[in-house]
Amino acid sequence: MTQLPNPTLEVCPSPALLHLHDISGSLVVIIDVLRATSTIATALYNGAHEVIPVASVSECIRIGKELGAVTAGERDGIIAEGLQHGNSPFEYPREFIQGRTLVLTTTNGTRLLHLASAAPRIITGSFANLDAVAGYLKRQDRPVLLACAAWKDRVNLEDMLFAGAVISLVRDRFAVTGDAALIADQLYDRAKDDLFGGLAGATHFKRLSRHGLQKDIRYCMTPNLAPVLPLLTGGSLVDAATLG
Amino acid sequence: MTQLPNPTLEVCPSPALLHLHDISGSLVVIIDVLRATSTIATALYNGAHEVIPVASVSECIRIGKELGAVTAGERDGIIAEGLQHGNSPFEYPREFIQGRTLVLTTTNGTRLLHLASAAPRIITGSFANLDAVAGYLKRQDRPVLLACAAWKDRVNLEDMLFAGAVISLVRDRFAVTGDAALIADQLYDRAKDDLFGGLAGATHFKRLSRHGLQKDIRYCMTPNLAPVLPLLTGGSLVDAATLG
Repeated sequence: MTQLPNPTLEVCPSPALLHLHDISGSLVVIIDVLRATSTIATALYNGAHEVIPVASVSECIRIGKELGAVTAGERDGIIAEGLQHGNSPFEYPREFIQGRTLVLTTTNGTRLLHLASAAPRIITGSFANLDAVAGYLKRQDRPVLLACAAWKDRVNLEDMLFAGAVISLVRDRFAVTGDAALIADQLYDRAKDDLFGGLAGATHFKRLSRHGLQKDIRYCMTPNLAPVLPLLTGGSLVDAATLG
Repeated sequence: MTQLPNPTLEVCPSPALLHLHDISGSLVVIIDVLRATSTIATALYNGAHEVIPVASVSECIRIGKELGAVTAGERDGIIAEGLQHGNSPFEYPREFIQGRTLVLTTTNGTRLLHLASAAPRIITGSFANLDAVAGYLKRQDRPVLLACAAWKDRVNLEDMLFAGAVISLVRDRFAVTGDAALIADQLYDRAKDDLFGGLAGATHFKRLSRHGLQKDIRYCMTPNLAPVLPLLTGGSLVDAATLG
C-alpha cells in the first residue's frame, strides 16, 4: 500500500502576498488574532446564528437592516459611524448574541476573507479556537494556506505567532513549506511560554493598549477559550458543528 | 539644548511590500544575503572598480560589451546564457576582479535595487559587510529602511536574519518601528550563535545545497569577511571609501 505524500502547508504573512499562492485547491485559514477572528470564534461559540463578514461600513449597515442583525465594526480602533458594536470579543456574551446574526466589518480580516474567496474552503483561526482549527486541519487531505490578515498589508507578529502555533500542532501531517512558515514556527517557539508578554513590543499591542484594551489582548492570546470551527459557507461564517 | 528624536528604522520583508513605505527621504539598505549583496561586497572589497546592477540578462550583455566588463548573473541557480560568471562570491578573488567593472544581474537583488531607486541614498548589506553597514547607519540622521530582496517576492529567513543583526547593532540610535523589525530582531536573537545552523531549514539553503553550494552559504552567513560599504551612485555600486 502506497502512502500518499503529505499535503503542503504554507504561511502567507500579508494579504499583499496572497497572489503568490495558488489557493484554487486549498483550505485557507484566515487569521486576524487582534481581534476579528477571535471575536468571530467567540460570537459563534456563544451561539451566534452566523457571522457575515463584509468589506465596507455601508454594506454592514444595509445588510444589518435587511436581516435585523447586529452590526459591528471599527475603523482605526473606534466603532464606525452607523454601526452598533465594536470588535471586542467581550461585546458578544451568550446572553446577547445567542441565536442572532452578526454582520461584521473590520479593517483587515474581512478584507482578506474576500481576497481569498477563490479557495474552495475557508475557515477562520485564532488562539481562541486553536485546537479546533488544528484538529480540523489534521482531518484534511488538501493543501493548507495559513493567511495572516496583517495590518493594512504590513506583517504583524500576533498573526504569525498563531500560524506558528498551528504548525506546532499539525506538522506531522503536512509538508510545511516556505520560509514564512519557518519564521512563524521559530517566532512561536520563542514566545510560546508567554504569548502575552512576547507580544509586548508589537505595534498592534501598543495600539490597542492605548485604547485600554489589554484585557482584549490577553483574551485573544489565550488558547481555546472559544472552541468552535468557523466555516465560510455562502458568504457567512457558521459553527461547522451545526452543519450536516 | 533639545535632542532631536531618533530617526525611524523599519524592515520591509519583501519587494512586494515596498510600496507600504515612504522612502523619498530614506536611506535604503538592500539585502540579498544569498548571494547577490554578499558577492557585491566581496567584489568591491577585492578591488572591483564598480558593480553595475542590471535587471535583465540582455542588458547585462549589452553593458558588459560597451564597457569591456565582467558579466555575471544566474537564473534559478545556473549562470544565465550569454554571461560569463555566476553569483558566487568565490568567483571574485582580488587577482581576478581588482580594477575591473562587474555587471551583475540576479533574480531578486538587482530588481529590488531598481524598485528602490526613489530613495535618496541606497547601500547594499550582507553579513560580509555587517559592521560597515551598521557603522554607516549610526552616522546617519535620516530614516532607514532595511529592504529584503526575498525570493520572487516570498519572504526569506536569511535576509530577515541580516536585518535583525543590523538592528542588534544600531537600536540605540533609531526608533525601531513596526512588527517586521520586531520579527527580524527576534529571529536573529534566536539564531545569532549559529547562523549557518539556524538556516538549515530555509528554502534557499536547501536550494543552494542541492547545487553543492554549502561553502557559499557558510561564507555568506559569516560576519565581516568583506568589510566595505557599497554605495549606489549614478547607477553603479562603489566602495564608499573610494569617494570624496
